Amino acid sequence: MSRTALVVSAHPGDFVWRAGGAIALHAKKGYRVKIVCLAFGERGESQFAWKQSGMTLEKVKAGRRDEAERAAAALGAEIEFFDAGDYPLRLADSHMDRLIDIYRDLNPGFVLTHSLEDPYNVDHPAAAAYAQEARIVAQAMGHKPQADYNYSAPPVFLFEPHQPEMCNFKPQVILNIDDVWDLKRKTFEILAAQKHLWAYYERVALQRGMQGGRNSGRAMTYGEAYQRLFPLVVEELA
Amino acid sequence: MSRTALVVSAHPGDFVWRAGGAIALHAKKGYRVKIVCLAFGERGESQFAWKQSGMTLEKVKAGRRDEAERAAAALGAEIEFFDAGDYPLRLADSHMDRLIDIYRDLNPGFVLTHSLEDPYNVDHPAAAAYAQEARIVAQAMGHKPQADYNYSAPPVFLFEPHQPEMCNFKPQVILNIDDVWDLKRKTFEILAAQKHLWAYYERVALQRGMQGGRNSGRAMTYGEAYQRLFPLVVEELA
Amino acid sequence: MSRTALVVSAHPGDFVWRAGGAIALHAKKGYRVKIVCLAFGERGESQFAWKQSGMTLEKVKAGRRDEAERAAAALGAEIEFFDAGDYPLRLADSHMDRLIDIYRDLNPGFVLTHSLEDPYNVDHPAAAAYAQEARIVAQAMGHKPQADYNYSAPPVFLFEPHQPEMCNFKPQVILNIDDVWDLKRKTFEILAAQKHLWAYYERVALQRGMQGGRNSGRAMTYGEAYQRLFPLVVEELA
Amino acid sequence: MSRTALVVSAHPGDFVWRAGGAIALHAKKGYRVKIVCLAFGERGESQFAWKQSGMTLEKVKAGRRDEAERAAAALGAEIEFFDAGDYPLRLADSHMDRLIDIYRDLNPGFVLTHSLEDPYNVDHPAAAAYAQEARIVAQAMGHKPQADYNYSAPPVFLFEPHQPEMCNFKPQVILNIDDVWDLKRKTFEILAAQKHLWAYYERVALQRGMQGGRNSGRAMTYGEAYQRLFPLVVEELA
Amino acid sequence: MSRTALVVSAHPGDFVWRAGGAIALHAKKGYRVKIVCLAFGERGESQFAWKQSGMTLEKVKAGRRDEAERAAAALGAEIEFFDAGDYPLRLADSHMDRLIDIYRDLNPGFVLTHSLEDPYNVDHPAAAAYAQEARIVAQAMGHKPQADYNYSAPPVFLFEPHQPEMCNFKPQVILNIDDVWDLKRKTFEILAAQKHLWAYYERVALQRGMQGGRNSGRAMTYGEAYQRLFPLVVEELA
Amino acid sequence: MSRTALVVSAHPGDFVWRAGGAIALHAKKGYRVKIVCLAFGERGESQFAWKQSGMTLEKVKAGRRDEAERAAAALGAEIEFFDAGDYPLRLADSHMDRLIDIYRDLNPGFVLTHSLEDPYNVDHPAAAAYAQEARIVAQAMGHKPQADYNYSAPPVFLFEPHQPEMCNFKPQVILNIDDVWDLKRKTFEILAAQKHLWAYYERVALQRGMQGGRNSGRAMTYGEAYQRLFPLVVEELA
Repeated sequence: MSRTALVVSAHPGDFVWRAGGAIALHAKKGYRVKIVCLAFGERGESQFAWKQSGMTLEKVKAGRRDEAERAAAALGAEIEFFDAGDYPLRLADSHMDRLIDIYRDLNPGFVLTHSLEDPYNVDHPAAAAYAQEARIVAQAMGHKPQADYNYSAPPVFLFEPHQPEMCNFKPQVILNIDDVWDLKRKTFEILAAQKHLWAYYERVALQRGMQGGRNSGRAMTYGEAYQRLFPLVVEELA
Repeated sequence: MSRTALVVSAHPGDFVWRAGGAIALHAKKGYRVKIVCLAFGERGESQFAWKQSGMTLEKVKAGRRDEAERAAAALGAEIEFFDAGDYPLRLADSHMDRLIDIYRDLNPGFVLTHSLEDPYNVDHPAAAAYAQEARIVAQAMGHKPQADYNYSAPPVFLFEPHQPEMCNFKPQVILNIDDVWDLKRKTFEILAAQKHLWAYYERVALQRGMQGGRNSGRAMTYGEAYQRLFPLVVEELA
Repeated sequence: MSRTALVVSAHPGDFVWRAGGAIALHAKKGYRVKIVCLAFGERGESQFAWKQSGMTLEKVKAGRRDEAERAAAALGAEIEFFDAGDYPLRLADSHMDRLIDIYRDLNPGFVLTHSLEDPYNVDHPAAAAYAQEARIVAQAMGHKPQADYNYSAPPVFLFEPHQPEMCNFKPQVILNIDDVWDLKRKTFEILAAQKHLWAYYERVALQRGMQGGRNSGRAMTYGEAYQRLFPLVVEELA
Repeated sequence: MSRTALVVSAHPGDFVWRAGGAIALHAKKGYRVKIVCLAFGERGESQFAWKQSGMTLEKVKAGRRDEAERAAAALGAEIEFFDAGDYPLRLADSHMDRLIDIYRDLNPGFVLTHSLEDPYNVDHPAAAAYAQEARIVAQAMGHKPQADYNYSAPPVFLFEPHQPEMCNFKPQVILNIDDVWDLKRKTFEILAAQKHLWAYYERVALQRGMQGGRNSGRAMTYGEAYQRLFPLVVEELA
Repeated sequence: MSRTALVVSAHPGDFVWRAGGAIALHAKKGYRVKIVCLAFGERGESQFAWKQSGMTLEKVKAGRRDEAERAAAALGAEIEFFDAGDYPLRLADSHMDRLIDIYRDLNPGFVLTHSLEDPYNVDHPAAAAYAQEARIVAQAMGHKPQADYNYSAPPVFLFEPHQPEMCNFKPQVILNIDDVWDLKRKTFEILAAQKHLWAYYERVALQRGMQGGRNSGRAMTYGEAYQRLFPLVVEELA
Repeated sequence: MSRTALVVSAHPGDFVWRAGGAIALHAKKGYRVKIVCLAFGERGESQFAWKQSGMTLEKVKAGRRDEAERAAAALGAEIEFFDAGDYPLRLADSHMDRLIDIYRDLNPGFVLTHSLEDPYNVDHPAAAAYAQEARIVAQAMGHKPQADYNYSAPPVFLFEPHQPEMCNFKPQVILNIDDVWDLKRKTFEILAAQKHLWAYYERVALQRGMQGGRNSGRAMTYGEAYQRLFPLVVEELA
């Protein structure tokens, strides 16, 4: 199993709130974790910035890029920005081509991305569909044929959306993130413009942690929930 | 994690066709595997026997008990019969009481039982509901209070029904049973009365095996599919 | 294909509103159609009667039995009453035994019964589950073993509930009932106590008729909608 | 619209965690709110008590009854105990008869009860099915015919289960409980044996509050989520 | 709550059949109701016109525009045409930009649009997705930043499609339209080319009316059914 | 009923594995069957070819075209290639225009195409959506108005995907293909590059055959499963 992981995130906040624990935990275990951040959330997730006078799109993007870079570094991950525009995402063929290259090069052990539905947000399902398409096309040997092709399509985990039931999200996997919770929580503070969400996502982690304890019978405090898109293949059930 | 497992099966054939690989595989790994066989399938799954003249219910039951005992032994498992009657199952309070005791005593690392729906068979969902209820009541400390209570409700895997899509069955977990396939296949032959199903379930194993290979990127030939009832709690996603 | 049909109806009105067209149409084609009416609807579907002074349960039942007999006769069907009590249905083992016998004796070409869900009515899903169980147990050769067993479990069609979307009802089959509409409509008038539903179910027939025309491209005016519980097996798709 | 409300709760904790805000809020508005508590949770939801030596079923029940009475009083509601036994609920015909009487007498403006599914708990869906059946049978004029019958089947709201996504629970209605939050939170403390849940359900209230604010555009802090079983009938959409 | 409403309709007939009652009722209550009609239905919903000789696309569009203007006026609403083409809708970026402006300017108290699925019609779900996207992007403060931004994303009601069950439509809200039924019915007659639908949609109104009466216990005759996309936030449950 | 049929297939293999029986059977019955093959599967379904040195896209396409032509001929069908590119499909307006013309000209008695969902393959659901859109637009009389318009939108059958449960595929119709199985199986061998799938799809046919026998009570060996998109309209239920 490849010890690399790929995170396809619509906006900077998403990889922190929804997958910050998984990123930090696997980085700590020695995984190479790469985040592809499709947009800066410059139009739709920077309400705070736009309330300041004299703000421009470029200034907002620069600010959010800076935050995202620091957040990725704090969690122990690489980050690549596609700057594809937000609300809505405007994904060009060149973005898809680049994402397929990343899948092939990284050959990730697993992929994290958004839920397939979200009636509150059009960018999130678009990002998930995009991550899915690239994962599949990377399998097509006739796409940029190469002699040393050894790509294997990885399992996909969908991360928890803001209002999970409204997105038909099912928490099929709960990841114990106790070992990296402090780091995840500190990373929240890099996202200064979304301070109103810090406590919200701390509560999400506590609820999933308690549920993780209930479902496993093993004590844990903080969790992240994921939905698997494909069957899990195992050698043992317990 | 407890290295014991519990299988709650409506009829003798079910634990062979649907979970024979899991039983044999975990037995081979050193698990104590216990099968609770709720009924002998004497009325509804012994068409062959009933075509013989002079047949009686007791004779059919004795024959099926013998087959089931040999099948369980072949797979490496213990078996306990509830003789609760089939078509429909007639589960008494004493059966429930006994099953709760088994949960408490065995404290299984996981439970295998039927799918929650099956429009072709009323005993299968009844068995699943029953296994579920016992699993839950075993958690009630006020049920037969005991000083050394240490029961932990185990994860539940639902096994594949005969016509999976009609039962809304989703193969969320595929178990690689290559190491025990020969044994599972030989066990089929103990079920002499259901010879028409041998090839059917060999094909099921091959289809799930090929799907397992596709979903994991690792070669495998034979599989068993399961649906999980509760979230999987993990320390690592890959 | 056996030219017999079985209708398992919770109350008298149900077989008229929901399946009156199918009954009349198949009777006209020469089918032997048998209705099993589980209860008289004496407590829960006789509001009109109970507003009369001096009413007793027996009087209400007698009145509803009379209506049901006349309605069945008008549609061209036999009827058998189980008098199992309504709101809720109280189905005894002897009723189940009798229903299984009916399945075996009639060996119906198809069965009509209620939808599997109905949050407005507990008797309807109970009747459907009951019809299902009897259909399955009738297959068990060890249930009343008989030398000349030749029962074949028939396809099941679920009839349209009062508020179809709330019951997760899907109209997978639309039956053209133009040839018997007048008869069905006249039969409504036998159900004097439920006059407020005559126009409602006339509109249902017109809506399903128009939808039938749209879905087939063939003109029709009146329809009845059904949901199939099992796959349709065919020799040709058109 | 009748200014009364009925809460059908499996165990004492449920009406506090899941509906304490609704109870207190409507009581404050002048509603007569009646809680029917089907069981004391004496076997399955009193783990703390059973860890004490010399404990008996009667002592546990007495303790939980006392807590439940004080909790109901604190919230401003009446409470009636059915003492039907828990894990599993053992609902007798006499209980059903009594619950139907309560529906008829109270003629509630709305009913609160459990979600229809809960794979972690068999009592909760049983309570919901029971509340549903009584609501329906109360409509049957032939059930205890009475001259002054004026019952109207009320809307049903399902309260939020412990792990909502696993129960297929959809938060279709969010009730703003800011005005009574302090009271609800204080009532938690009456449930001394379930201290581990206080913080959990405080977080639930905060999450639903924040979601309520997002969905309405009106500031609010604490919420309770409900699922409606039937369509809402309105004179105006906004 | 803003006393304005927005209707996003694929074609002219849709806002009449599906939302004519809501439009007339809220207009009568003093709401400013604005209809955005994305296409004239000139290719796909003007079969009658195309049967006339010498017909051209421009003539058909002119005829349908005239009908739509008269229908909107009759119902008491404003109408704006996007002329985006039908079968399929061809929505350009400029249309999206305009629709976002409308959301911002009108700041509607609620939005009405099509169901999310419709296997019979590709324009309807496209219109719904489009209305959704504009509603969301209007929230993005970085989209045309403005000093006096005060937009609040409104609740969305999906209107009833032609064959509701096939579109997975659930009637969660039934609006009593008795007060404006005569007006709605008269408006049908403006749609001369779709005369075959007048009676169909009159029956829809009667069925939803009767269901509204059943669900509320309050007499009503005509209704319109809607599905809510987001939770309803309330201060009282009754 | 028109004795013509249309198959809209993403890639060459699909119409053989998934619909080869239906094609051969109806061709044998005298239907004109036309296959529209949207892409050659040159990039994503020709792994074998790309492992050969010196391979080019044009060579792969030529090879797959040749296979597809021979397979169509063997099955008794016409074939038209859109050469729209695969992984992903790149369907241009001119392709849609052509497909609509085909619907109008062929006026098929039924259409076969892919399932609506497939998380393993983006081309399959795209092909199904495309076939759906063309079927609907062909109904629009204002699309290329013609004097002799007599198109009637045909029923749609979705064919079985590779991992049916993961695609939410329900086998609502099982076609008995015993009469043409040998031919279907021989056609597999034309698809030399996908030899690993021959046995897989032979097993699919055997499983569906056995299920067809169970569901009909009539002996059969080989089947193909389909899901219907629209209600079936009938004159008789049996």
